[in-house]
Amino acid sequence: MKRVFVRGVYQTAFGELWDQSFGDLLVEAGQGALKEARVEPEEIEAVYVGSMLAERVVEQGHLGAFLSSQLGMNCPAVRIEAACASGGLAVREGFLGLLSGEYQTVLVAGVEKMTDACSPEVTSGLMGATNGEEGAHGFTFPAIYALMAKAYQDEYGLSERELAAVAVKNHYHGSLNEKAHYQKAISLKEAMTSEMICEPLRLFDCSGITDGAAAVILSRKKGSVEILGSGVATDSLTLSGRKKFFSLAATQGAMAKALKMAEIRREAIDLAEVHDCFTIAEIMALEDLGFYERGKGKRVALRGESYFNGKLPVNPSGGLKACGHPVGATGVKQIVEVVNQLQGKAGKRQVKKARVGLCHNVGGSGGTAVVHLLGKTN
Amino acid sequence: MKRVFVRGVYQTAFGELWDQSFGDLLVEAGQGALKEARVEPEEIEAVYVGSMLAERVVEQGHLGAFLSSQLGMNCPAVRIEAACASGGLAVREGFLGLLSGEYQTVLVAGVEKMTDACSPEVTSGLMGATNGEEGAHGFTFPAIYALMAKAYQDEYGLSERELAAVAVKNHYHGSLNEKAHYQKAISLKEAMTSEMICEPLRLFDCSGITDGAAAVILSRKKGSVEILGSGVATDSLTLSGRKKFFSLAATQGAMAKALKMAEIRREAIDLAEVHDCFTIAEIMALEDLGFYERGKGKRVALRGESYFNGKLPVNPSGGLKACGHPVGATGVKQIVEVVNQLQGKAGKRQVKKARVGLCHNVGGSGGTAVVHLLGKTN
Repeated sequence: MKRVFVRGVYQTAFGELWDQSFGDLLVEAGQGALKEARVEPEEIEAVYVGSMLAERVVEQGHLGAFLSSQLGMNCPAVRIEAACASGGLAVREGFLGLLSGEYQTVLVAGVEKMTDACSPEVTSGLMGATNGEEGAHGFTFPAIYALMAKAYQDEYGLSERELAAVAVKNHYHGSLNEKAHYQKAISLKEAMTSEMICEPLRLFDCSGITDGAAAVILSRKKGSVEILGSGVATDSLTLSGRKKFFSLAATQGAMAKALKMAEIRREAIDLAEVHDCFTIAEIMALEDLGFYERGKGKRVALRGESYFNGKLPVNPSGGLKACGHPVGATGVKQIVEVVNQLQGKAGKRQVKKARVGLCHNVGGSGGTAVVHLLGKTN
Repeated sequence: MKRVFVRGVYQTAFGELWDQSFGDLLVEAGQGALKEARVEPEEIEAVYVGSMLAERVVEQGHLGAFLSSQLGMNCPAVRIEAACASGGLAVREGFLGLLSGEYQTVLVAGVEKMTDACSPEVTSGLMGATNGEEGAHGFTFPAIYALMAKAYQDEYGLSERELAAVAVKNHYHGSLNEKAHYQKAISLKEAMTSEMICEPLRLFDCSGITDGAAAVILSRKKGSVEILGSGVATDSLTLSGRKKFFSLAATQGAMAKALKMAEIRREAIDLAEVHDCFTIAEIMALEDLGFYERGKGKRVALRGESYFNGKLPVNPSGGLKACGHPVGATGVKQIVEVVNQLQGKAGKRQVKKARVGLCHNVGGSGGTAVVHLLGKTN
C-alpha cells in the first residue's frame, strides 16, 4: 500500500474566542500548518475542511472553497460533515485522496465557532447529529450520554468517584496544555460536588462549548510521522436502534479496521486521544477500543493509569473535556496532539518513548466512529 | 489508472414533494440505485451523501451515517458539502475512494428538501455559498447572476430573447421528462414577458425551489458506463475576488483537468448536463467548457443547436431550470441523466448515438466547479 505521512500540524488556541471569527480561526489553522510543514500553498493539491455547525451558527457553507481561496489556492476543496466526527472523517478523506494517487499533498482542517450563537441554538444544532426522534422526546446530548452511563452502571456498577476521576485527570492534562480551553486542574471533590446536569452526569462530566480550529498537512512525501491505519464504521443514529447502550459498535468496528490496515497489535499503542465528550464516553472508549475488558474501564483514571506518565496515557491534550470540543476541529486536533507527542514536542505533558498513537473520534452518540493509528518513521 | 464504472442510477421525482420527508427522499434514492444496480447493501463499502441545506432546513446533520444505517449498513459514510456543487463533489469523493483501493463498490447520493422552510430561510441558507460580504450588501443569488449577465451584456451584447431561448429549450426538455419539476413547455413570449426578478433576469431565467434526491452506485466492477475523467477547481466565493464576471475560472480549470484525465478531445463529447441555475449560467458554461468561443454561447439555444436532437444537446433532462434544482441532489442527478442517455434509456428526449457525456456542477457563483466525463464501455 502507498504510504501517507504527516508533514506539519497546527492548533489554534481553544476557548471562547470573542476576538476571532470563524474565518479567522480556519485561516490561522491552515496557514499555521503550512508554515510548520514548510509547504507553500502551491504544493497543496486538495483541501478538506471538517465542520458540523457552520451553517447554523455562522451561516457559512462552501467551506472547502472558502479556505482554499483564502489561502490563495484554486485546487479541489470540499467540506466534510459527520457530526462530531467531522474532523476525523476529513482526515480520512484526505488520506484516501492521497491513496487514490490523484494528490501528493493535501491540507486537512477542522473548525467550529460555537460561541457566536445563543446556547439553545447550539444545543438544537448539535441534535442534528441524531435524528428528529430523540429531539422530539426532549433528549439533548447530556441526557443521551447519561442514559449510556446508567446502562453501564446497571451492567457493571459505576460510582460518581470513578466518573469524576476521568474529569480530574483530563483537567490536569489541560492545565499542562497552553492551547487548552480549561487550563485549571480540579479536585475529585470539586468534580463530585459540581452541579448535576443529568444524573449521573455532573457539570464536570460534560465537555464545554468551545471555539477553535486545527489543521494538518498530509503527504506522500516522507515525514517523521506516518498514518499507519484508518478505520471508520457507522451505526444507528439513535440509541433506540441499538442492542446495547454501554458500548459503541461503531468504535469496535473502526478499531478492528484500523488495526488490520496498520498490521500492528493493540499492545504496540503507546498513547490515545479518545472522544471524551462526557466522562462516561472515555470509559466506554477504553473498553470498545479493546484496551480494557468490559467493566474494567471505569477504574483506569482513578488508578492513575491513563495519566500522561501512566501505563497507557489517554487524552494527554486534556481531551474534549478540558482541551475543549469545537466539534469539527476535534478530530483534527487529536491528530495534532498525537503528532506532537510522537515528535517529542508536547512540553510539560510529554509522554515518554511514544512511538505509536491512536486517535478516536465519535459522531453523535456513536452513529459514526473513526480511528486513526499514527507511528514514528524513525 | 484504475477504472471506475457506474453500475446503477436512480432519481426520485423532483418537485414540491409535500408528502415525502428529507429522509424518505434520501432512502428512496439509495434503495432505488441499489435495486437498479442489482447490488445488495452488504456489497456497499462506503456511502457519500451530498447536501447543502440539511441543517438549516430540516435540522438534520450526520447524513452519511443517517443513510447507511437506514439501509442497514455499517460501512464508512460521510456527508459532502460544496454549496450547490455538493452532489458533484460527493461523486468525486466516491470516485477517489474507489481509486484509493480501499473500496470496490460505493453508494453516492445527493438530496435536498427545500420546501420545508419558509422562503427567506432558504434564501438566507443559499447565501451561505458565498461569504457574509455579499449578503451584507443585500445580494441574493438572482442579483449575483444578474450582475454576471450584465457583465456579459457589456462585453458581448446579450438580448432578452437570447436568454429566454435557454429557458424555452430547457422547459421543452422538462416537458419530455416525467421526473422533472416543471413538465410544461413555455413560449419565447411567455419567458420574455414573465415577471422581472433582477434585471436582466426574469422569472423564467431562474431555477426554482425544488425537493428531490438522486443516487448512483460506483464500482471497480465493470459496467456499461465508465467515469473517464473528473476535475475540480475552486475560486473566490465572491465576485469581488475575481477579475471577470462573465466567465468562471473554476469551470475552465475543472474542464481542463477532466479532459486531461480522460485523455479525450472536447469534440468527442456528445451531450452535456451543465449548471443552469440561471439562463446566463448555461450560456457562460458553454463558453467556459470550451464548446463555443467567447461571446458565441448566447445564440446556441436560439439557433436550436442545444436541443436534445441538435448538434450538441445541453441539459436534455431539463437542467436545473426545468428538471429542478434540489441543491445537493443536482450534481448526482446530472450523472443519472447522462448514464440514462448513454444507455439509451432516456425515452422521448433520447440523444442519438451518445457515447460520451459531460456533467458540470457549480457551487455558489463559481467558488467551486466540478466536471465529470462519462463514456460507454461497449
